[in-house]
Amino acid sequence: MKNLVRQNILNVKPYVPGKPIEEVQRELGLKDVIKLASNENCLGPSPKALDAVRKSLKDINRYPDSSSFYLKKRLAKFLGVREDELIIGNGSDEIIVLAVKTFVNPPDEVVIAKPTFLIYEIASQVQDARIRNVSLTRDYKYDLKEMRKAVNDATKLVFIANPDNPTGTYVTKKALDDFFSSIPDDVIVFLDEAYYEFAKVSFKDYPNGLDYLNRENVIISRSFSKAYGLAALRVGYGISNAKFINYMERTREPFNVNLLAQAAAAAALDDKAFLKRTLRHVEKEKKFLYDAFDRSNLEYVASATNFILVNVKKDCVKVFDALLEKGVIVRDMKAWGLDSFIRVTIGTHEENRKFVEGLKKVMEEL
Amino acid sequence: MKNLVRQNILNVKPYVPGKPIEEVQRELGLKDVIKLASNENCLGPSPKALDAVRKSLKDINRYPDSSSFYLKKRLAKFLGVREDELIIGNGSDEIIVLAVKTFVNPPDEVVIAKPTFLIYEIASQVQDARIRNVSLTRDYKYDLKEMRKAVNDATKLVFIANPDNPTGTYVTKKALDDFFSSIPDDVIVFLDEAYYEFAKVSFKDYPNGLDYLNRENVIISRSFSKAYGLAALRVGYGISNAKFINYMERTREPFNVNLLAQAAAAAALDDKAFLKRTLRHVEKEKKFLYDAFDRSNLEYVASATNFILVNVKKDCVKVFDALLEKGVIVRDMKAWGLDSFIRVTIGTHEENRKFVEGLKKVMEEL
Repeated sequence: MKNLVRQNILNVKPYVPGKPIEEVQRELGLKDVIKLASNENCLGPSPKALDAVRKSLKDINRYPDSSSFYLKKRLAKFLGVREDELIIGNGSDEIIVLAVKTFVNPPDEVVIAKPTFLIYEIASQVQDARIRNVSLTRDYKYDLKEMRKAVNDATKLVFIANPDNPTGTYVTKKALDDFFSSIPDDVIVFLDEAYYEFAKVSFKDYPNGLDYLNRENVIISRSFSKAYGLAALRVGYGISNAKFINYMERTREPFNVNLLAQAAAAAALDDKAFLKRTLRHVEKEKKFLYDAFDRSNLEYVASATNFILVNVKKDCVKVFDALLEKGVIVRDMKAWGLDSFIRVTIGTHEENRKFVEGLKKVMEEL
Repeated sequence: MKNLVRQNILNVKPYVPGKPIEEVQRELGLKDVIKLASNENCLGPSPKALDAVRKSLKDINRYPDSSSFYLKKRLAKFLGVREDELIIGNGSDEIIVLAVKTFVNPPDEVVIAKPTFLIYEIASQVQDARIRNVSLTRDYKYDLKEMRKAVNDATKLVFIANPDNPTGTYVTKKALDDFFSSIPDDVIVFLDEAYYEFAKVSFKDYPNGLDYLNRENVIISRSFSKAYGLAALRVGYGISNAKFINYMERTREPFNVNLLAQAAAAAALDDKAFLKRTLRHVEKEKKFLYDAFDRSNLEYVASATNFILVNVKKDCVKVFDALLEKGVIVRDMKAWGLDSFIRVTIGTHEENRKFVEGLKKVMEEL
C-alpha cells in the first residue's frame, strides 16, 4: 500500500520542548523541581493580565473574537502602527508558520542561521522549502554577510532572530542596515523579536524592527510569552505592511487566539510597572550568573535576553541529566548541534542560586 | 515588482465568523444582545472545567505541556483508544488543517460536500489542493453515493461532517458502512464529529466514528467547543491510527494548545452531569423552536445538532440585519450559497423566545 503522507513531512524532526516541571516530578519522583528551560518569566504573569483573565472567565463558552479587535486596537496604539498592519497569533510561533505558509512554495528557498530557533527550519520543512543554512560567527552571532551571500534568485525568505535563541546574541543596527541595503527587494526578511524587550533596555545599538517597516518586504514577530509572562496562554503578533497582513490573514484559522489570551495580552501592555520590574530583575540576575560562571571558569555567551548559553565543556546531555537529578531543569543544546552547551533561563534569585550550586557539583562529579 | 504571495492564497476567501455580542453592541449601540450564531453552549461552560481553569491560573507564565500529557491520558481512557492514537488541537479546526497539511500535496484532490463546514475548503485552498465539490441531496443531506463517484485516482482525502454544519443533518450507519465498503484503501476519510454528542443521544442510526478506526485511513475529529461549552479556550482532538498521528504531530506547532484549555477539557470529560443537562436542554428547546416554526409555516431542516437551518424564503441577509436591529444575532447562510436560509443556535429558553418573537416581527415587516 502506498504511503499517503507528503514525503517532506517524513524529514521533519519534531521540536523537543523544555521538560515541564510536572513531568520531571513524575518521572524522577522529585518534589522540589525548578524549571530554567524555556525562557519564561520567573516573576509570573503581569498581575493586570491575570485580572483580565479572571474577568473573562464568565465567557469561556463563547468563541473568541476572530479579529482580536480590542487587542489589535491596543497594540496599534502601543506600537504606533495601523491595525491592518497587525496579525495576532497563537504565540509568535504561529506568525512564523503563517508567514511560511503564505509566501513559501517549492522550489522556493529560505535562508536560516545554524544553530538558531528551531521552528524556522521545521516550518520550512513542513512547507517543503529548500533550506540554506548559514553558520553563526565564531562568537555565536548571526553572520549577516554570509547570509546575504546565501541569497539567490530562488530565495523567498530570510529569518533573523534578533536577539537570537539559543545564543542570546543580537544583530546591531549597523549590521542590519548594511544587510537591508544589499538585499534584493523581492526577498522577505522575517525579524523575530520574541526577546525584543530584554535587548532594547540594555543595548543602545540594538535596532528596533519597526524602523524597517517602511521597506516593502519585512515581517516582524513579537511575543507575550517572554517579558510579559503569558507563555501558557499562547499569544504573539506579527507586524508588516497591510498587503502582507491581508495575505497572512487568509491562512490563519479563524479562532486561532483564545479569549483569555486576547484579554491578558491587552492588559499586559498597560502593566508598565511589571515589565520594568521584570527587565530590572533579569539584568541583575544575569550579572549574578555571569559572576558565578566567571568564578567557575565557565565560558558563556553575553546575552541580550533572559537566558544564557553556557559552555560546560562536557557532554551536555550528561550535564542536563545530572542537573535534572538535582531538580534543576535546563536545556541541553544537543538538538542545536552545540554538544557541550547548556542554556539556562534567568530564574528568581533563589532558583539561580540552586542552579549555580547544582552546576558546581555536577561539574565536579562528571 | 513580482507578487511574492503563493498564487493559491489569492483564491482563499477568508472565513467570516458569527458576529460577537460586543461588536453588535458597539456598532448598533444596543445593550441587550443575544448571540445564536456560533453553536455555542448556552448553559455556559462545565462548572468543573471552570474550576480547573481557576486552579491553573497560577501557572500562566509557564509554557503549556506540549504533549498534552494529562488530557491525552484522560481522553484515551474516556474513548477506549491508545494515547498515541490521539492528537490535541487548538480547536478541532486545527485538526482539519493539520490533516490537510500532512497528507495533501498538489495535484492531490479532496472531495468536499457543498455546502458544508467552510474550513474544509479554506484549508484545502491554502494547501493548493484541487477541490471536487459534491452537492447535498434535496433534503440537505450528504450524498455519499455521489461523493464516492467523485473519488478518483488523484483523490487523497474526503471530508464528511457528521452531523453536518450548517444543515444539522447526519449520515446514517448504513450509509457510512456502504461508503466505506466501496472507498479505495488509499483515500483518507476525515470524519468531523464536532457535534457528535448531540447526534448520539438522539438518533439510534447515527454511527460512532470510532467504529471505523479499524480501517487504515480514517481520521476523526471532535471538539470541546460545542456540547462541552469551552469555545473560548480552543481545544479539540483528532483520533486516528498511530502512524497517521505521528505524521500529523510533525506539522503541529509545539505549544498549540494553551494550558487552561488542556486543564478545562480534562475536567469537562468528568462532568457528566453538565453534559447530560446540556443535551436534555437542547432536545427540549429544539422542540420548542420546531413548534414555533411549524406555527409560522417556516420550513426547517430536522437537526441532529444544537442549531437549526431555517428557510425564511426571503433574502437571508435582510432577515439577518433585521434580527440584528432587534438584538438577535443569527447566521445568514449567504456564504454557504443558501440565500434564503438562516441558521439559529439553540439558546436558553428566554433567548429562544426572544428570537421567535423577533423573527415573527421581521417576517411580517420584510
